[in-house]
Amino acid sequence: MSKFWSEVTRLTEPYVPGEQPKVKNMIKLNTNENPYPPSPKVLAALKGAVDGNLRLYPDPTADELCEAIAKAYDVAKSQVFIGNGSDEVLAFSFLAFFNQGEQILFPDITYSFYPVYANLYRLDYKEVPLNEDFTIPVEQFFHAEGGVIFPNPNAPTSIGLGLEQIEKILQNNPDKVVMVDEAYIDFGGESAVPLTRRYENLLVIQTLSKSRSLAGLRVGFAFGNEQLIEGLNRIKNSFNSYTLDRLALVGAKAAIEDTAYFEETRSKIIETRHRVIGELRQLNFTVLDSQANFLFMKHGRVDAKQIFETLKEKGIYVRYFNKSRIDQFLRVTIGTDEEMNRLMEELATGILS
Amino acid sequence: MSKFWSEVTRLTEPYVPGEQPKVKNMIKLNTNENPYPPSPKVLAALKGAVDGNLRLYPDPTADELCEAIAKAYDVAKSQVFIGNGSDEVLAFSFLAFFNQGEQILFPDITYSFYPVYANLYRLDYKEVPLNEDFTIPVEQFFHAEGGVIFPNPNAPTSIGLGLEQIEKILQNNPDKVVMVDEAYIDFGGESAVPLTRRYENLLVIQTLSKSRSLAGLRVGFAFGNEQLIEGLNRIKNSFNSYTLDRLALVGAKAAIEDTAYFEETRSKIIETRHRVIGELRQLNFTVLDSQANFLFMKHGRVDAKQIFETLKEKGIYVRYFNKSRIDQFLRVTIGTDEEMNRLMEELATGILS
Repeated sequence: MSKFWSEVTRLTEPYVPGEQPKVKNMIKLNTNENPYPPSPKVLAALKGAVDGNLRLYPDPTADELCEAIAKAYDVAKSQVFIGNGSDEVLAFSFLAFFNQGEQILFPDITYSFYPVYANLYRLDYKEVPLNEDFTIPVEQFFHAEGGVIFPNPNAPTSIGLGLEQIEKILQNNPDKVVMVDEAYIDFGGESAVPLTRRYENLLVIQTLSKSRSLAGLRVGFAFGNEQLIEGLNRIKNSFNSYTLDRLALVGAKAAIEDTAYFEETRSKIIETRHRVIGELRQLNFTVLDSQANFLFMKHGRVDAKQIFETLKEKGIYVRYFNKSRIDQFLRVTIGTDEEMNRLMEELATGILS
Repeated sequence: MSKFWSEVTRLTEPYVPGEQPKVKNMIKLNTNENPYPPSPKVLAALKGAVDGNLRLYPDPTADELCEAIAKAYDVAKSQVFIGNGSDEVLAFSFLAFFNQGEQILFPDITYSFYPVYANLYRLDYKEVPLNEDFTIPVEQFFHAEGGVIFPNPNAPTSIGLGLEQIEKILQNNPDKVVMVDEAYIDFGGESAVPLTRRYENLLVIQTLSKSRSLAGLRVGFAFGNEQLIEGLNRIKNSFNSYTLDRLALVGAKAAIEDTAYFEETRSKIIETRHRVIGELRQLNFTVLDSQANFLFMKHGRVDAKQIFETLKEKGIYVRYFNKSRIDQFLRVTIGTDEEMNRLMEELATGILS
């Protein structure tokens, strides 16, 4: 605590990201990165953009990238907002659409950055308890005083919500913004982007970090009606005119345009997930039905924290949350088949015995 | 205006950056970019970092870059904060150290983003009038209720302030943060970074956009005592854990380490500036004494806006501010010698006649 800190700084409770250990040859299944590299076309585009023009500011409106995203998702360019990772898009969205004194709603078990944003901006919030089976209690999100946010699929539960359920939440919050955080949507969920045409209160947030293998490039985006996108731009242009560097703009565009590579790698992850879920259940794990690139699972007998720590000693990093309701669960990113085989071996030949 | 906008969004008055025209072969002297490309070592480092590891998150603490900066500026690593351009560092700093209800001070003629940040966070501010000669009235910044920020050299005036004057401001605000925005310091000013060892209320903000030719990479940083840096990290980690992508981290480190190229290019700009100021004065321009990579000047007879528009027609972009006290001035970035010769020719052979 310092006398120089503002009241806001004193009251923050900063987010703690998953470990980024500097250990060689580890198997990294703890922060939901994609096990496959970015598209070769992305790498080629990035190399091509490393030149003397880096002395010049980037396009502050990210025109070309907006156009590429609009084309790929069949929306108007004016319905697309770009940010420095979906975390920045979320940070702007909370400020752009939620008001102090009006309670916002999100699940009790969800992305742990939401309460951090709410604290930063002094927003009231209520954590709505998930159902016993970790599904979202849809009716509990009706008539929110300040607005709604939830991930679909939810994290860390991996469970997806159908569009008809999302429509109910939208219809029952006509005057408040409902944010659907689709960081993991490309691994089997049903995207709400088409609903942005019909619901002016819907903001859908996506990222290149997961399904496009570009966590290292920091690009996120949002879809919504023009009024919402204009609101986001007002906040962004009051904060930082140039949020994406020239390389990120070029790499992101190439990633969006390489549909074939995107389809190939996400299919591989879905296949691996399907196989591994079956094998884990045979080892007496309860594994929730996942529509994401990670699993949420607990063992019938062995303590989750113990499994987490033993795996870490073996060089396999997964994520453990010391939080009530989920402290017997592990979140495990879907890696390559080889990585998942190593995980299964370690589990089968020692940890669970 | 939309019913979905928060009160904050409704009240914002977003910053308008200088034009980034998509015109070929123009001479771009309007946004204070460096006319020389980044160091060849930066480009090589960037190319080397374009690989499959872009699938992984960057280091959220920017450890290696912090170390390189600390070494280059002879401070402790814990005294360095990194951001996505100095605009983001400024945005975090306003939130981290200034409080609602406590008036902050900055000059009336200065970087026009300051009032935008203040509006975003609902901070009270007073614009302190510069002296008639556009120098900073040092005593007017004593005993600020909420804190102080000014650029050194100031922009768009280009005039620098000596360290003994800055010390007076620091000594007369012992309980409030004084921010010195050194975006242009490397072109002849005297940096306040060494003062951070003695003044716990001093935050110095710099950028790679100008003197390191990397406006396109978006890297800024701040120096201050550990308490201030911890405050900035609390805000940053409540907003976005990963503000710099893997490429920006690598390119920035290479830029900081290539001292020889930095010295060479900034010397060239200082030399060009010296020559051009002499020539402009011969053409009846009043040119303020510049310690920056731009000039602030007005003609004895011809209207500034007219010069601005005629230059634009000729493909030469400079900056004009339609603002009282300075509406007869132009801000002109120092380009290459060839670019400045073209400017002088156009001025001498038509515009002023």
